[in-house]
Amino acid sequence: MPPQAINFHDKLQLISEHWSPKIIARMNDTHLKLVKIQGEFVWHSHPETDEVFVVLDGSMTIEFRDGVVTLNNGEMVVVPKGVEHRPVAAEECSVLLIEPTGTVNTGDAGGDMTAPPDAWV
Amino acid sequence: MPPQAINFHDKLQLISEHWSPKIIARMNDTHLKLVKIQGEFVWHSHPETDEVFVVLDGSMTIEFRDGVVTLNNGEMVVVPKGVEHRPVAAEECSVLLIEPTGTVNTGDAGGDMTAPPDAWV
Repeated sequence: MPPQAINFHDKLQLISEHWSPKIIARMNDTHLKLVKIQGEFVWHSHPETDEVFVVLDGSMTIEFRDGVVTLNNGEMVVVPKGVEHRPVAAEECSVLLIEPTGTVNTGDAGGDMTAPPDAWV
Repeated sequence: MPPQAINFHDKLQLISEHWSPKIIARMNDTHLKLVKIQGEFVWHSHPETDEVFVVLDGSMTIEFRDGVVTLNNGEMVVVPKGVEHRPVAAEECSVLLIEPTGTVNTGDAGGDMTAPPDAWV
């Protein structure tokens, strides 16, 4: 059997919880994850890795200590390794995350918003 | 300055040549590339790595020795390391590729359709 196509919309329909990334695919040691976000996340950084945000539906901002990046549908950003950031979305926003396997959503901050890094959908 | 947002549509407007992937971002040792495709590519594999195709606009198929995968806008697939495949698009299709730095489009096949693996847009 050939590999299977993955439809972002279909996968997103299976996700209701906010701030809880779900893995949809693995490429080598990289996970592709879908997450729905709304509200304000915690300030954190990932000391070990860069992280990619791709907005699939809606819009979000990522606050940095030196400015704010706005991402609309069809836009992406690379958050560099070790750089503090805080994702925020006024309304629900669907995001594709690309990051190494094992990356935890809250990075070095921990806390109540920490989600398991190994949940598939 | 915070990192910059990258808009897929804006970047795609800078690309006219088919089958010539252009890097738009780097996450650790992974490149994100945009490519416009039309027609039939060459059968090839990447002995060293998996490869992700995400269709941003249009539709394409990827032929495998044991079947065909169709990808429409908003769909993706992971081509496993070492698996022979041939991308095909009847009409122009815009694709986001995710693969390690240095990955050559024609993999082990080489030939006239080989593009430089280090061109940015």
